[in-house]
Amino acid sequence: MHLMPAAMARGLAGTAIGLALLSGAASAQDASATPAENQIADFTLDNGLEVVVIPDRRAPVVTHMLWFKVGSADEEPGKSGIAHFLEHLMFKGTDEHPQGEFSARIAEVGGRENAFTSYDYTAYFQQIAPEHLETMMEFEADRMTGLVLTDAVVDPERQVVIEERNSRIETQPNSILGESVNATLYQNHGYGVPIIGWMHEIEKLNRADALEFYQRYYAPNNAVLVVAGDVDVEEVRELATEYYGAIPSNPELGARTRTEEPAQRTARTVTYRDERVTVPGYSKSWVVPSYTTAEEGEAEALDLLAEILGGGIRSRLYQSLVVEQGIASSAGAYFRGTALDATIFGVYGAPRGEATLEDVEAAADAEIRKIADEGITADELEAAKNRYLRSIIFARDDQSGMANLYGSALTTGSTVADVEAWPERIRAVEADAIKAAAARYLDQNRSVTGYLLPQEEGRS
Amino acid sequence: MHLMPAAMARGLAGTAIGLALLSGAASAQDASATPAENQIADFTLDNGLEVVVIPDRRAPVVTHMLWFKVGSADEEPGKSGIAHFLEHLMFKGTDEHPQGEFSARIAEVGGRENAFTSYDYTAYFQQIAPEHLETMMEFEADRMTGLVLTDAVVDPERQVVIEERNSRIETQPNSILGESVNATLYQNHGYGVPIIGWMHEIEKLNRADALEFYQRYYAPNNAVLVVAGDVDVEEVRELATEYYGAIPSNPELGARTRTEEPAQRTARTVTYRDERVTVPGYSKSWVVPSYTTAEEGEAEALDLLAEILGGGIRSRLYQSLVVEQGIASSAGAYFRGTALDATIFGVYGAPRGEATLEDVEAAADAEIRKIADEGITADELEAAKNRYLRSIIFARDDQSGMANLYGSALTTGSTVADVEAWPERIRAVEADAIKAAAARYLDQNRSVTGYLLPQEEGRS
Repeated sequence: MHLMPAAMARGLAGTAIGLALLSGAASAQDASATPAENQIADFTLDNGLEVVVIPDRRAPVVTHMLWFKVGSADEEPGKSGIAHFLEHLMFKGTDEHPQGEFSARIAEVGGRENAFTSYDYTAYFQQIAPEHLETMMEFEADRMTGLVLTDAVVDPERQVVIEERNSRIETQPNSILGESVNATLYQNHGYGVPIIGWMHEIEKLNRADALEFYQRYYAPNNAVLVVAGDVDVEEVRELATEYYGAIPSNPELGARTRTEEPAQRTARTVTYRDERVTVPGYSKSWVVPSYTTAEEGEAEALDLLAEILGGGIRSRLYQSLVVEQGIASSAGAYFRGTALDATIFGVYGAPRGEATLEDVEAAADAEIRKIADEGITADELEAAKNRYLRSIIFARDDQSGMANLYGSALTTGSTVADVEAWPERIRAVEADAIKAAAARYLDQNRSVTGYLLPQEEGRS
Repeated sequence: MHLMPAAMARGLAGTAIGLALLSGAASAQDASATPAENQIADFTLDNGLEVVVIPDRRAPVVTHMLWFKVGSADEEPGKSGIAHFLEHLMFKGTDEHPQGEFSARIAEVGGRENAFTSYDYTAYFQQIAPEHLETMMEFEADRMTGLVLTDAVVDPERQVVIEERNSRIETQPNSILGESVNATLYQNHGYGVPIIGWMHEIEKLNRADALEFYQRYYAPNNAVLVVAGDVDVEEVRELATEYYGAIPSNPELGARTRTEEPAQRTARTVTYRDERVTVPGYSKSWVVPSYTTAEEGEAEALDLLAEILGGGIRSRLYQSLVVEQGIASSAGAYFRGTALDATIFGVYGAPRGEATLEDVEAAADAEIRKIADEGITADELEAAKNRYLRSIIFARDDQSGMANLYGSALTTGSTVADVEAWPERIRAVEADAIKAAAARYLDQNRSVTGYLLPQEEGRS
């Protein structure tokens, strides 16, 4: 029922790109040609709940998502995993609606539901026919404050999360390495702590921890409601006011403050060996600005840099390492731009045939250096922008993609206007900005390289 | 006036060893042969202040040290450096004794003073003639609660700390590397944050932060008073009761809880290049149990392992790498056993002549593997124990060394009885325990290796 948090975060790595490229081609129509009745509406209730309505009349479907501006990076030291654990516990029922009733109702009306936790946000999702929107709101608003937690439900659910960690991390060499790479890359910020939590801390999470987190962060003035689909803005306003409007805001919420990273000054490597590894692989990561922290145009340049360097089969890394040199079975790059704080730019690859991991890394490093030294061509930039813009448009063509786009942006410091201006800002990026971003941020002396290797012969 | 915190922590790396080996040979007399009037006394005042009196009648000198059970690893996220900053601010005066009066008085009577901050404790030290002990207590007790902090004193002192960080870290390539190694080694614990604080966080520390830290942690129930020297136990008890006894304890202090490290599962490297580096060097570190967290006998085994592997010129590393192979200009090992939480075991070396850093590292790794695989000889163990015990005895022969030994032990979870039983526990270590400790803890696949290198030619 609960999407893997890390997977979700990675799915949003290139924000809408991941979704679009996976889903195939899209028409390159102009995103600004939106009919008036399809204009996105954005308003805030008296209790602080921000509501975004994204009309989409093509089919009788509505996506109802409640986003909280709290994620794993907001957790206290020693309480890692509490954001994700609470996400699980949110399905445990209220006085009004005992455990199972909400999900049963969704199933009854042929809907689907989900929930996920990331570093910066936690979201709850239902997709139903329009006539059931009111019911969804009633249930979702009810559990924003009415959650009933007893040890009898908390204790077994902790075991469920422990099993989830076992299956998603402990048994996955790539995830074990990834946790250590993140903890090495981030020396002072919560992005270095796994979203699901460290095992030894999950084991100690209890009812009091969950309640404290819930009571502090699950409040209308810390949430964004996104309703996309076959709905009328005024109808959503009335329903939202009726169901969510009555919930008191939390005056003690406080500002969202995070620790900052110190300057990155060293090159680091992280090597994980595991007998379960059959195909070696590597990744190289840097701390870079996000859309929220970047100077104007820099995050857009990083997005296009990721696209040109390693976004799919047209990219330099794929063309050079996989197609031309034939030394890699995979190679790519990504930028996790949708983040509240300084974020990650990553490159990865795996060798093929006789080639070694060192060959692949050296070849990828050379491609990075080439962009930093020589820049990119005008044609290359144009093509990358077109691919990128198509992917944004495609994401906008998808109802839940739109809801994700706005929800993740609004819970990481962006506004509706930022999201709407995004295509224009991508169009405005010049080739020099991409060269400059590569030269400034993709410095080998400030990178963290992760190596996933098979167990060495005769060594422990 | 303020000892470098990191240097101090490193000075206590082998607890008393560092002090002793630097100071030359010592007689191997039996430490248990203490005359009755020199017995150490340990008692607790009604307000929770623990008092340790270490009689030492050889000269008319008294060491008066007040230790607080709070250090940099107790800081909140985002407030790194506040423990050390407060140590500076403790010299800013009270209503009773304006700034400078305390220091002037000490100078007047020919005494000396100091203060230092470490991960687990903060301590204030004066050494004076016995007749001035009462004055020291009066001043020290007064500033435990009477500190007056205004922005007018806090703001310039912040600049002093920033300059201290500039001179001790920013301009020292070895320290820059060390910070990154620590941050890489510790993935979840405050030992990964520099004692002096991250620069960007020091810059934001303010009066309110300092006051909050002071009011919470500077309380008699969070302190240990150590008085060593030409004093009578009853006299110290009376004076301590008079001056410190009146200070109310802080009922809201709470338990001292720390985050724990997750399992270490990867091999990591940290490389720092700097044009100021002329001699390259390397270090290899592991997270290992401290005296406070170890199973019985394990910390003692790690202490002797450090001694045998790399404690001075008799050690395997020195003999093999420096003397026999002639590939290293230095090579050694240390164990920071006196720590509240899981701590560090480290090995280091630097190449000589034609030898490379890789040669030195490989040779040191081979020495480690040899102990893990083949163990040590009975003669080697005996000699190491004798050297180690002599160093303990020598430390005990030194008045401020004794005060440091007890103060650091008592603020990191040990008791007076633990310190007194220490030589006996060292004597009880068997050869197999040292082999087992090396095999269990010095695993290359869980190590962090730091490389200090000159700037590469033609690379940024």
